[in-house]
Amino acid sequence: MPIRDLGHSRIDTHRELRCGFPEAVFGAGKTPAELVDVARALVEHHRRFFATRVGDEGAAALREAFPDAVVHERSRIVALDRRSSAPETGLVLVAAAGTSDGAVAEEAALTARAMGARTELLEDVGVAGIHRLLAHSERLRSARALVVVAGMEGALPSVVGGLVDRPVIAVPTSVGYGASFGGVAALLAMLNSCAAGVTVVNIDNGFGAGYAAAQINRDLATRES
Amino acid sequence: MPIRDLGHSRIDTHRELRCGFPEAVFGAGKTPAELVDVARALVEHHRRFFATRVGDEGAAALREAFPDAVVHERSRIVALDRRSSAPETGLVLVAAAGTSDGAVAEEAALTARAMGARTELLEDVGVAGIHRLLAHSERLRSARALVVVAGMEGALPSVVGGLVDRPVIAVPTSVGYGASFGGVAALLAMLNSCAAGVTVVNIDNGFGAGYAAAQINRDLATRES
Amino acid sequence: MPIRDLGHSRIDTHRELRCGFPEAVFGAGKTPAELVDVARALVEHHRRFFATRVGDEGAAALREAFPDAVVHERSRIVALDRRSSAPETGLVLVAAAGTSDGAVAEEAALTARAMGARTELLEDVGVAGIHRLLAHSERLRSARALVVVAGMEGALPSVVGGLVDRPVIAVPTSVGYGASFGGVAALLAMLNSCAAGVTVVNIDNGFGAGYAAAQINRDLATRES
Amino acid sequence: MPIRDLGHSRIDTHRELRCGFPEAVFGAGKTPAELVDVARALVEHHRRFFATRVGDEGAAALREAFPDAVVHERSRIVALDRRSSAPETGLVLVAAAGTSDGAVAEEAALTARAMGARTELLEDVGVAGIHRLLAHSERLRSARALVVVAGMEGALPSVVGGLVDRPVIAVPTSVGYGASFGGVAALLAMLNSCAAGVTVVNIDNGFGAGYAAAQINRDLATRES
Amino acid sequence: MPIRDLGHSRIDTHRELRCGFPEAVFGAGKTPAELVDVARALVEHHRRFFATRVGDEGAAALREAFPDAVVHERSRIVALDRRSSAPETGLVLVAAAGTSDGAVAEEAALTARAMGARTELLEDVGVAGIHRLLAHSERLRSARALVVVAGMEGALPSVVGGLVDRPVIAVPTSVGYGASFGGVAALLAMLNSCAAGVTVVNIDNGFGAGYAAAQINRDLATRES
Amino acid sequence: MPIRDLGHSRIDTHRELRCGFPEAVFGAGKTPAELVDVARALVEHHRRFFATRVGDEGAAALREAFPDAVVHERSRIVALDRRSSAPETGLVLVAAAGTSDGAVAEEAALTARAMGARTELLEDVGVAGIHRLLAHSERLRSARALVVVAGMEGALPSVVGGLVDRPVIAVPTSVGYGASFGGVAALLAMLNSCAAGVTVVNIDNGFGAGYAAAQINRDLATRES
Amino acid sequence: MPIRDLGHSRIDTHRELRCGFPEAVFGAGKTPAELVDVARALVEHHRRFFATRVGDEGAAALREAFPDAVVHERSRIVALDRRSSAPETGLVLVAAAGTSDGAVAEEAALTARAMGARTELLEDVGVAGIHRLLAHSERLRSARALVVVAGMEGALPSVVGGLVDRPVIAVPTSVGYGASFGGVAALLAMLNSCAAGVTVVNIDNGFGAGYAAAQINRDLATRES
Amino acid sequence: MPIRDLGHSRIDTHRELRCGFPEAVFGAGKTPAELVDVARALVEHHRRFFATRVGDEGAAALREAFPDAVVHERSRIVALDRRSSAPETGLVLVAAAGTSDGAVAEEAALTARAMGARTELLEDVGVAGIHRLLAHSERLRSARALVVVAGMEGALPSVVGGLVDRPVIAVPTSVGYGASFGGVAALLAMLNSCAAGVTVVNIDNGFGAGYAAAQINRDLATRES
Repeated sequence: MPIRDLGHSRIDTHRELRCGFPEAVFGAGKTPAELVDVARALVEHHRRFFATRVGDEGAAALREAFPDAVVHERSRIVALDRRSSAPETGLVLVAAAGTSDGAVAEEAALTARAMGARTELLEDVGVAGIHRLLAHSERLRSARALVVVAGMEGALPSVVGGLVDRPVIAVPTSVGYGASFGGVAALLAMLNSCAAGVTVVNIDNGFGAGYAAAQINRDLATRES
Repeated sequence: MPIRDLGHSRIDTHRELRCGFPEAVFGAGKTPAELVDVARALVEHHRRFFATRVGDEGAAALREAFPDAVVHERSRIVALDRRSSAPETGLVLVAAAGTSDGAVAEEAALTARAMGARTELLEDVGVAGIHRLLAHSERLRSARALVVVAGMEGALPSVVGGLVDRPVIAVPTSVGYGASFGGVAALLAMLNSCAAGVTVVNIDNGFGAGYAAAQINRDLATRES
Repeated sequence: MPIRDLGHSRIDTHRELRCGFPEAVFGAGKTPAELVDVARALVEHHRRFFATRVGDEGAAALREAFPDAVVHERSRIVALDRRSSAPETGLVLVAAAGTSDGAVAEEAALTARAMGARTELLEDVGVAGIHRLLAHSERLRSARALVVVAGMEGALPSVVGGLVDRPVIAVPTSVGYGASFGGVAALLAMLNSCAAGVTVVNIDNGFGAGYAAAQINRDLATRES
Repeated sequence: MPIRDLGHSRIDTHRELRCGFPEAVFGAGKTPAELVDVARALVEHHRRFFATRVGDEGAAALREAFPDAVVHERSRIVALDRRSSAPETGLVLVAAAGTSDGAVAEEAALTARAMGARTELLEDVGVAGIHRLLAHSERLRSARALVVVAGMEGALPSVVGGLVDRPVIAVPTSVGYGASFGGVAALLAMLNSCAAGVTVVNIDNGFGAGYAAAQINRDLATRES
Repeated sequence: MPIRDLGHSRIDTHRELRCGFPEAVFGAGKTPAELVDVARALVEHHRRFFATRVGDEGAAALREAFPDAVVHERSRIVALDRRSSAPETGLVLVAAAGTSDGAVAEEAALTARAMGARTELLEDVGVAGIHRLLAHSERLRSARALVVVAGMEGALPSVVGGLVDRPVIAVPTSVGYGASFGGVAALLAMLNSCAAGVTVVNIDNGFGAGYAAAQINRDLATRES
Repeated sequence: MPIRDLGHSRIDTHRELRCGFPEAVFGAGKTPAELVDVARALVEHHRRFFATRVGDEGAAALREAFPDAVVHERSRIVALDRRSSAPETGLVLVAAAGTSDGAVAEEAALTARAMGARTELLEDVGVAGIHRLLAHSERLRSARALVVVAGMEGALPSVVGGLVDRPVIAVPTSVGYGASFGGVAALLAMLNSCAAGVTVVNIDNGFGAGYAAAQINRDLATRES
Repeated sequence: MPIRDLGHSRIDTHRELRCGFPEAVFGAGKTPAELVDVARALVEHHRRFFATRVGDEGAAALREAFPDAVVHERSRIVALDRRSSAPETGLVLVAAAGTSDGAVAEEAALTARAMGARTELLEDVGVAGIHRLLAHSERLRSARALVVVAGMEGALPSVVGGLVDRPVIAVPTSVGYGASFGGVAALLAMLNSCAAGVTVVNIDNGFGAGYAAAQINRDLATRES
Repeated sequence: MPIRDLGHSRIDTHRELRCGFPEAVFGAGKTPAELVDVARALVEHHRRFFATRVGDEGAAALREAFPDAVVHERSRIVALDRRSSAPETGLVLVAAAGTSDGAVAEEAALTARAMGARTELLEDVGVAGIHRLLAHSERLRSARALVVVAGMEGALPSVVGGLVDRPVIAVPTSVGYGASFGGVAALLAMLNSCAAGVTVVNIDNGFGAGYAAAQINRDLATRES
């Protein structure tokens, strides 16, 4: 079995072959020491790591162990890539409804980029000021895959879905209060979208959306040849 | 006490003075005989009645008792008004997201009209084809009060709320399946609307929305003079 | 596009034309620096700003940047208006069921006032001591629009709705414990109100209720002439 | 063990000694033959039976087996009492908010009466027309125990609880639609009542409320002497 | 109106006449100064006060203002009664399933005692060791009213209800974890009790249960004579 | 692969080796023809079949195809076993709280028996008449595994769990109304049982409980030798 | 506006240009006459129509109006395509966990095919017999996009997601009982999938999943050239 | 009664006879002093104690009072056993889906071991890398009882249940975010498992699962001889 056992974690070193991307590190609930262990093993095998939901202490430990790692404060991502840079391809467009949705949107964009996609981020284009969104219709239509991030009433993916001919991945966020129930209102709205082609990930799961968008974005011709 | 006791119901004959409109009859759960009794008492006092959620048997009984009553099949309303017709004033605009939301929208429009409002109905303007709505921006802005009806993801009121300077009353409908939970998804979306000035009524409560819109629409000058 | 881009936020400078009131600032989740940035842009365009849900640090920063701003501790609102004072018109009456509902009630009242309404606040008139409310029946009936704030069982809007002929906007609050589920019990009660003309906003959304009430309160004649 | 085993049911013949009232028969889910069997055993031991939630076929079977049984159509109760009639004592007052709550209210009143209480029924006194209730304040205050039945927003028990010095047992009903969730809205409202002394039973459980009220109503002096 | 207005609170000084007990003070959400204000007003009118859910600071302030007040640490109650002591009458028995339910049970017992009832407390008699409860059957049957407190599966009231002929008031507590959902599991179990005569109050509402039990316990003969 | 493909179903013929029992047939949602097809394939491989949740038409079709099959009306099970009868071993005791829980209890008992367990059924021993249960304490303690079935408040497994030293498998049933929410109240109560050793299956899943109990009941010595 | 207004519906004739596929007809809630109207308009503009959730009467009406339409009984789809057949490209693989999930799986497969994808269907490969799935690993890895359909515990998408490097669209179904809550259990499981690249659609929404998969499957080269 | 009353707790000293294991101590909500008291009483009667959910202060107090006690940091268990060591028998295998499920898995394993079972722990074998689990098939099949621990989508028990012929006890954990709702998603998945023989305990209840598994694991021959 191509599994590397670190005691606290087992790293599946063949995953890149099977799924096209090495394991990402889910930082929540890991100690700084564990994070560094896992990151070191990944760097050995793949010359890179990509960790999400990293707390302050974890980020400090990673930066100390890997001085060339990049820490993204807003989205709590720490990443390192020592490979010679590959060109980014295609386009994953990430649109966010409100300012507070920015951290999740950034998580999606950084994930997609780490998987080789060219990405753009379009913020603060919520539906209560619909003209802000419509002004970017052409840009929306130029993407191979779109990630649409929204909290509160979660309406943005439905509007975007009606404007484009490519898949829209909707990310509900926990932005809101009262009857938003920590993102449930947005999640339900997105699952009930009247626009065909909209699929949904878990609340605040920017990583999952960016990952799926990058899979879609990859050049199929390359894969099949 | 200005209460008329019919045994099965007590009719509050002073309600028109206090609330500006006589009691409407909630048809659900009343027998045809009870419906006719209540309608007769209202006609005696007010020369009109307005009944919602009337089933087939109830409608037949009312039509037999009041041959000049009007039966609205789609919205299950039966109404009669023997007063000399008063001019309709102002404008309550009712917008509905999908074809299936039409019955609830009609309930709202007929209610508002029965309370003296001029009304217009704009159907099938859901957010997945946003240009259909935007084509009517001027019409939306001409209303004194708006009722916006939507099932599924319930996004329409947020978009409308960003286009107008008058109150928007949002009505979630039970149109949908699966995670729409009988209208809960739309209800939550509307309660979390990012557009200010949107207020919400119960699922499928076209009557309540039309009633509130007509209250808003009434000429304040008249009332205060 | 009449949008001013601050990086972290885009300010819609035409919103006052379209919706009758410039953008309010939702303080939750904004840094003190962001709050000051947005407030400054609004003051430049509109000579005023109105910020809700402002934390202690944000309030301090705003007060430092705008020494003439007013900080309302109880409702966490910070506001500034440098226009020559316009007369307040009409009447928005805000009624609150319990002492603990006072902060939300104040948010509603200050919002309505900032939009030009004359406002009154009637506190601690919950339904378990119904005579306290009935003693104010005339005052209730003198308002053009009413905001009714209640937590726990959320019964007050139903009683008020039966006493007046003007729209009642119900605000559930998160006051309560156990099976109040953070305001859900009150929210459901208000959505199921047996009084016609009651519409509802999100839990603790005093701002939304005050906004809608002020829209209703505005002199229609003025608008239409 | 003082248990009589009928195969499909075991009848606890000492229950009257232990709990003050023989077993009532819960008719839902029993076949007509089973109902008759149980009723016959109860009549043998106690010269009476009291069955709730009896369907049409069950009622017909019971009437055939016991021609002197009484069938209450509205509340689906079938009862027989062949003891020499005992005087009814005290007063259990049952108040119902709306016409549709009448069946549950009748179930409560008949149950209390079967347990020896004098009962009165006060219908259609919902909170949206509060003066209807207040007109009966003296009557409310004359009861030893009160049962208050309401669907929709379930506000009536809170108002009654503030008017009396005796226990109020609140019964939520499944009357309503949409966000009433089959009585959950009323149930939550009652559990969160701001009036002290209000206790609650299951949705539509008129039997349980009438039973508890009759226990309270019983003359304590008698019991203790 | 017999209302004393303190600004932050309105005290209903006639409540004792109407409801048999002066207003209790709900301490949660009140500042220490407000608590002292309200307590002082109550002492002036009634020579006593009874405050629940009082935090550490509030308790210290009350103790300073009223050195003869009693602070109950476990149940967070602060009380004072300067009347000449009245004899306690009847018996309210409070039974608690687990050790952790003790604070709520004490709140119920102290409330009932403050309203004039003799009370007993029976702790740690949960259903998984049923013989512990059965050993106290006689004691259970000697009470005029019973309060039964339980978290987790909330089964105790059903067992007790089958053993006694007096009303059982069930109090679900938030004791538990995971699928107890903060007391919801116990609340639902109690609402669905198969024992007749069980009524329910809100989660952790020991005050409400003790209040209702004391109302039941009061000597009816006295009241009616 | 030891899979037999019938088009509409794939039968895993090695399952008996792997899991100790051939596939049971879940009758819900299968046409009578499909049921007969699957039953025939199972009889060919294993000389027996065991089908649950079989409707009237399905039962008729199975009886016609297999005249020696047995139809259990109450629990909707149809079964056939043409092997020479093996002795039943051990003891699985199935206890049911109320008469209406009988169908689910029978499903559990028949399932356990089909897997080789000796079974006994103890009905109508709910906790509101606790002495009925305690009279059978010895019998409860003689079982190798227990299945305890209850609707409404679901309290019985907790009491049984405190009386025995063997595993208790709790089955919530959908018996109840209102706040039983189709068995959710009983399910939550069982998950929160204060008695150790209680595990839970889905609502109305008598089959799963009987299956697990029979697995536990099997003679381990036999298996391991 | 390129909208064709049929009274009951507005057909967006430019949708194919904008979104790559003409409007599909959602049959639920439409009368047979309305269905035929809409289908006729679509055939005129696009020479084809594709209708989902069509009841028996609707299907009969469509077949009468369009004798060359195809009716798919299991998935309730009626479709017609009069264009010269285009070659199907790529591969969308649809995998279903259980026999009962077949109708939803067929809806997904027919939708994808109607949008030009080559499709394969792999049924009855649920996780409780994991070897059935693993035997098809190569086939799973050959798809450009995968739709994975499952009810009950909804675990299949997580397993599939770990085996492939292409996007997995998970469809929860309402297959199950009790605590499946009409598909909610499966929906939540899929939203919480530990496999990256899994996105989710509404319960039973085979159409949405097939639509999104076909969008992904389309040859990007073609689109961009 | 064989109950030892400590004031704050009553210790059932006959429980070991009745249930096969002395009372375990649920540490949550007990003060350090109470913990020590209970532990001391148990050590006197049984020469051992086993405490779960012990906080830092409680652990320190226990270690001071019983220097030979063992503190397990990860699972928050403190235990002491002064009996001459008995041989561990059988095999309870505990499998955990993810690294974060390890604490709950350890709680289950330590509980089973304290009850005399030989135990093994298999971590990080979640379904998104199914080969990691399958590599251990033989080990899974060698256990007498299995505990399977998983958060997020909770799929692991279904896969394991299809591989073994012994009972599987599933433990949902609160590991996850967003729509995992604190473990509810995993709980529902497990209750709906398509694998027969899977039973479920409360969220994070490793103790209950380990306890039930150890009961199953015990040598029945010994018990019955």
